[in-house]
Parts: sequence; structure tokens; C-alpha cells
Amino acid sequence: MQAEVIAVGSELLTPSKLDTNSLYLARKLSELGIALARKAVVGDDRASLAEEIRRARRASDLVILSGGLGPTLDDLTREASSDATGRALVLDESVIDEIRERFRRFKRPMAEVNKRQAYVLDGALKLDNPRGTAPGQWLEDDHGVLILLPGPPRELEPMFAEACLPLLASHAPSQRFFTLVLRVAGIGESDLEQRIAPIYAPCTEIATTILSAPGDVQVHLRGQGTSEAEAQAAVQGLGEAIRSELGDAIYSEDGRSLAETAAALLARGGAKLAVAESCTGGLLAGALTTTAGSSEFFAGSVVSYCDSAKSGWLGIDESVLRAHGAVSQPVAVAMAAAARERASDTLGEPAIGLSVTGYAGPGGGTEADPVGTVYFAVADANGARSARRLFGRGRARVRTLAVQTALDILRRRISGLEVA
Amino acid sequence: MQAEVIAVGSELLTPSKLDTNSLYLARKLSELGIALARKAVVGDDRASLAEEIRRARRASDLVILSGGLGPTLDDLTREASSDATGRALVLDESVIDEIRERFRRFKRPMAEVNKRQAYVLDGALKLDNPRGTAPGQWLEDDHGVLILLPGPPRELEPMFAEACLPLLASHAPSQRFFTLVLRVAGIGESDLEQRIAPIYAPCTEIATTILSAPGDVQVHLRGQGTSEAEAQAAVQGLGEAIRSELGDAIYSEDGRSLAETAAALLARGGAKLAVAESCTGGLLAGALTTTAGSSEFFAGSVVSYCDSAKSGWLGIDESVLRAHGAVSQPVAVAMAAAARERASDTLGEPAIGLSVTGYAGPGGGTEADPVGTVYFAVADANGARSARRLFGRGRARVRTLAVQTALDILRRRISGLEVA
Repeated sequence: MQAEVIAVGSELLTPSKLDTNSLYLARKLSELGIALARKAVVGDDRASLAEEIRRARRASDLVILSGGLGPTLDDLTREASSDATGRALVLDESVIDEIRERFRRFKRPMAEVNKRQAYVLDGALKLDNPRGTAPGQWLEDDHGVLILLPGPPRELEPMFAEACLPLLASHAPSQRFFTLVLRVAGIGESDLEQRIAPIYAPCTEIATTILSAPGDVQVHLRGQGTSEAEAQAAVQGLGEAIRSELGDAIYSEDGRSLAETAAALLARGGAKLAVAESCTGGLLAGALTTTAGSSEFFAGSVVSYCDSAKSGWLGIDESVLRAHGAVSQPVAVAMAAAARERASDTLGEPAIGLSVTGYAGPGGGTEADPVGTVYFAVADANGARSARRLFGRGRARVRTLAVQTALDILRRRISGLEVA
Repeated sequence: MQAEVIAVGSELLTPSKLDTNSLYLARKLSELGIALARKAVVGDDRASLAEEIRRARRASDLVILSGGLGPTLDDLTREASSDATGRALVLDESVIDEIRERFRRFKRPMAEVNKRQAYVLDGALKLDNPRGTAPGQWLEDDHGVLILLPGPPRELEPMFAEACLPLLASHAPSQRFFTLVLRVAGIGESDLEQRIAPIYAPCTEIATTILSAPGDVQVHLRGQGTSEAEAQAAVQGLGEAIRSELGDAIYSEDGRSLAETAAALLARGGAKLAVAESCTGGLLAGALTTTAGSSEFFAGSVVSYCDSAKSGWLGIDESVLRAHGAVSQPVAVAMAAAARERASDTLGEPAIGLSVTGYAGPGGGTEADPVGTVYFAVADANGARSARRLFGRGRARVRTLAVQTALDILRRRISGLEVA
């Protein structure tokens, strides 16, 4: 089976937007052993989209469209699919009821234009969209399978995983794939590559990929076999060898992010956390509260964006601020201690305080601590540990790296690993 | 003139890599008034690449290929272009000399395989590549222009800028484009469409696109003319009509985000801000500190993620929390007042406090205030205003909508607009 992905939307042809849904789809298809042969991006133009669908269906037996299912007049995926397949669009009253119900829940009237979303290709299966108004569609005929998915990733991904993957599995080849994902903190991409390339390079039967985002590197090892268990067994040896090399820099193998891993460790130990952050401006707290249930262990954060907030809100001694400056190891330690005290007062013991203070740039910095310098501290009943990192330039990048490093320091401290 | 971009390389079909050259090319083309009609990604397969080139040349008069010009056997762009155009590949001895010279400079022997890079389409212009071994190619015939560029951005971008742009400028239409971007807060995509479709639909000479992200909808109006000024003038009438309809829901026309707009308003008025946030968990502060210089007006935020942090950290009266619950209008107002007091104490007057408290879900909520209910308040020297919104389900979505709504309420209050 061979697949093509067509992303629909004129905004995806502008200098500022890329189709990223195809990365998710490529990953899911590869797990089923389905090769992605081609990707295309087409604007909101009915004739050229219809032509693209026709061409793709001639070449490949699985064609997946993303986007263009919304209510507005420039959402033309339904119409173009109808043109390309010669199938009429049939009004599905049940969809109108669902959309109306959705609007009722939000206590808003349903705009008439939403009815456009209730048209389904004759003979197609409607795919429910609990996270949005536009349903997806699955059409299977002599030319293969045509899938229409909504554009927003938060609607597309669950719809594809829940409704399409089970249907596709019956079409997929007997070959099965398994991907072991090792997520790593505290090591940059090129250092990681240097350390593990001699280990994985000889194992040509395992497809090894290194994915890198600021502060978060993932090693993907993909094995294959005639069953899922066989595919899983195929990657074990290489996985073990890479684990030995990277040790406790690997923070998760279950897909959990660093924030989720730290949250799970806190929840498991019954520990309570408060944060004091400066240059991350609330993003560290934002990361810790991404998952539901964080109120169990998270008291909150004091985002002190100026010196007087550090003294007035957190009670940091003004003489310490004056002597060392707000971006310094002593202030990071004092912030962590103040946060720990708040966590303890608010949610009780065992309490942990975590702090970040640094120069995100582009302004600020000193000769000794240039832009990109960030101090961290973590405080618990056994005292405080601190760390200093140099992240270089780029405000957004420095902030992201600082959040990731703080989470990693928290993880290491709770796990009894060294912090430095 | 209409363009298509074809990115070549099987690695661009994996779950970890995207073609980003097309963003650069889209930007450069739009500056010349050349519309990008389509993008495609094709693997290292000679037949399907040749088919793709044929198809693209039939549809568009400018086709730009990136990648597949290297020395290895899976670099097939030259051969596929030869197949598609019916033109032979001719050995250009001068290219071999250049490659050999390059290897000599790096004191390495030239591998025989590099000679593959010295073949040029019969009749094509060779484009020098000072940053790599593979030259580009420019072919112009009855079917239009076909450009072959190397894949690495550091080779592609200067080659396109230095060699192709001057050549394209003579082909480009005297036509110029101008896009008016109206950014809108507080109106959902479908409501917006319903309100403005009757206005823009009759103006077929203006390309109108509605881009939507949670809490942030953009209306793009693209006009054309023989000069930039004429293109700009072309969209003024429709722009004015849409402004009349949407009024103060339009928060920017200069590309600034809602956070940047609110920050600019604060900076202009010399006002100081502090935030008290609950369900947004630090993301509101994170949005306000995205741009550099925010320490001028932003004191910080208290992220109170549990009731005792609301009372202990912010000094909210426990009886108010008990009587109304943490997610309520009186608590939102008390939080905003506490934040305002902190801003005033820390950075002085005029001071503003902004607050958010709500149920992000999936847990929590009451019958009267189900999951997705969020209360907001803004307090200044003239008292407090509050608002309540129902955002429905989806933790990440509720948090994003709450951040956007809080920023919009802040913007409206500073601008003297009604808050409700």
C-alpha cells in the first residue's frame, strides 16, 4: 500500500506557514508499514484541488487530505473531492444536529454557514470529530481509500488515531513495525550523535533517527517483524546498548515529555512544588500545568519580572540582590528557598522549590554573565542545589532551553541524581 | 506568472523532516508579485519526479526544484529533468574543473562520483555554487522557466538571490501585490465569516482569506495593481467596509499579535501591569513577556494553582473563596485588585491588575459553571471590570482561549472600550 498526503489551504503557500500534519501522518503510516510516496500542498482552489486528488488517486491507493473542511466559503475540500470522485455531496442531518448541539453547549447560536460542514460524499463513512465541528470522511472504492481530515492538529490527530488507524490496519501489509523512543535531556544533538553513531551505524536493519528540539532530543529506533512482538524484540539489543551509553540522561521511554515525567515523579512521591521564575516569565509554570491533575502537586509560581518583585513578592533580601545582582547563583538559591517555603505553607511537606533567573536577551547581561546565562536552583528538605548554563543568543530559544533545563534539574533532584 | 516548488528527497517524506526551502522561495516570489500555486515533495524516484515536473510545467510557467543535485546515485533531479523536458544531459568540463579545484582547496582527492554533478541540461544556463559542489541550472523554453537548485538552504538561498532573482525580475509581471491583514479578537471564525462574507464576496478582484487560531482570527485582503501603491489602494474600499462591520474587535493592522498590541498600549500609556492567574498556569505571563523590553511595564504574575495559594499568596479573603468558590466573579475581581496593588507597590502608578480563574478541565466544574468556564477581571484606578466566558472542552484549547481573552480584555480596558 502506498500513500500520498495533500494539505489544503492557501495559507500553507505563504512564507509563514508549513504543513506539519504530514509529519504526524508519516509517522503513523510508517508504523503500519505504509510508505508515504508524495506530499503536496494546494491552495483553496476547487479546480486545482480536484485535479490534485485525481492525480494522487491514479498514483497511490491511499490518499489523505487535511484541511479545507471548515464552514467558510474558501473551505473547498468537500466540493473538490466530489468533483474528483464523481460522487454527489449528501446532506447528513445528524451532523447538523451535532453541530447545533455543540453550539448549544457553548450557549451560542449556530451560524447558518456551519451547515456546509454537514455534506458527506455519497457512500463515504462519516468520521466523528468530538473536538470540532467538521466531521472527517472515509471513502473506499475501486480506486482505493480517500480520507478527508480537518486541518487543526488537535482535531486531525485523534480522528486519525481513533477512526482511521483501525480501518487501515486491515489494509496494511503483514509486516509490522515498532519504534522505541528514547527521550534525552541535557545533551545537545551533535554531542549525542557523536556518542551513539558508532553504536547504531552497524545495525542497518534498525532505522535510527535523531529528532531534535531545543532542550529535548529523541532517539527513534524502528525495527520490523512479522508481528508487533517480533518488531519490538528486534530493537531490544540496540536499545540496551544506547541506554548503557546515555545512562540517566534518558528521561523517558513511554512517550512522556520532560514536564510530564517530572510531574509523574512529583505525584508518585507525594511531593509539593512551587516555582519562582524570572526570565522564563511564566512558561515554566505553564509547562508544569500542561497536564490535568497538576493541582495535586503544584502550588503555583511567582513570576518576578523585576528586582522589586523579587524582594517584595518573594522576600529576597535586598542586600543579596544588590551584592550579586538578580541574575546570580545566590539569588537563584534564595528564590528556590522562598518557593519551597510557599509550597510547604500552601500544600505541606515534602515540599520542593524550583527557581530560574537569567538573561533571555536581547538586552541585559554582564561581562561575566552574558546574554543567555541562566541560573537554576532546586531546594528541598535536604538543602539546595544550583546550576548555571550558557545558552547563547535568541530570546525564544533561551526561554525554551531554560524551561527544559529547570524541568530536568527537578527530575534529577527528585530521582536522587546529581545536579550540576 | 505562476510558480510551483518541488522539493526532492526521500528524507523529506519521513516523520522528522520538512521542506523549509519553500518558505524562503515563497517570500522571494511574493516580493516579485509571483504567486506560489502549489508545493510538492517527491522522493528519490526518477520516474515519479519526471512525472511531477511534467505536470507542474503544464500547470505553471515557473517550476523550481530543490535538492537531488548531489553526487550520489540517489540524486536524480538532473536525470528526471532530462526525462521530463526531452533534453539531453551534456557534460560541462568547466564544472569538473571547478569541483576538482574545490577538492584541492580542501586538500582532498575528488571522488569519481562527483563528475555526475557536471552534467547540465542541453540549453540550460549553469548557476554557480560558491558554497558547494553542485551547480544549479536555469532552463527557459516554450513551456516556461525550470530552475534546479541544491537542497541545503545555505547553498540554495544565495544562489536564488544572486542568480535567479535578477533573471526573474525581467519575467515578473508589472503586477504588484499588497495584503492588508486585519487581526480580530473576541469573534469566532464562523461568526466572523457570517458577518463579513456578504461584504467581501462581491469583491472578486480582492483575494480574501480568513485564518483562524484559537482566540485569534485574521482577515487577509490581497489586492493587486501595477505598483505597490496601486495594489494598496485596491484593498482600501473593502478594508474600510470590513472595519465598519467589525469595529473595535480589530486589534491590529500592523502584523502585531494580541500580546504585542497589549504590550505596546501599556508601554505607550506608561502603565504598569501585574497578573494573577490560575487556570492559565503561567501562560498569560509567558505571552506578555514574549517580546523583549516587557520588564519596562510588567512586574510579574502570581500563578496561584490552589485555593490556599489564592488566600496565602494573594491575600484573597478566605470567606470570599468559601462563599463563591475559587472560580467565580468575586474571586476574579479580588485577584485583579490584589495584582493591581502589587503592580503599584512594585513599579508605581498608573497600575493595572489582570486576573484569570477558571476550569481548564478535564476535571472540575460545577453545574452552574461547567468545565471550560473562565472568569476574568481587570482593575485600574477607576475600579474593576469582569467578564465570564464558556470555552467548552479541551484543556489546551481552553488555556489558549483564556490567555487570548485576558489579553483582549486588557487591550479593551486600556483603550477605553467596553469590557463585558
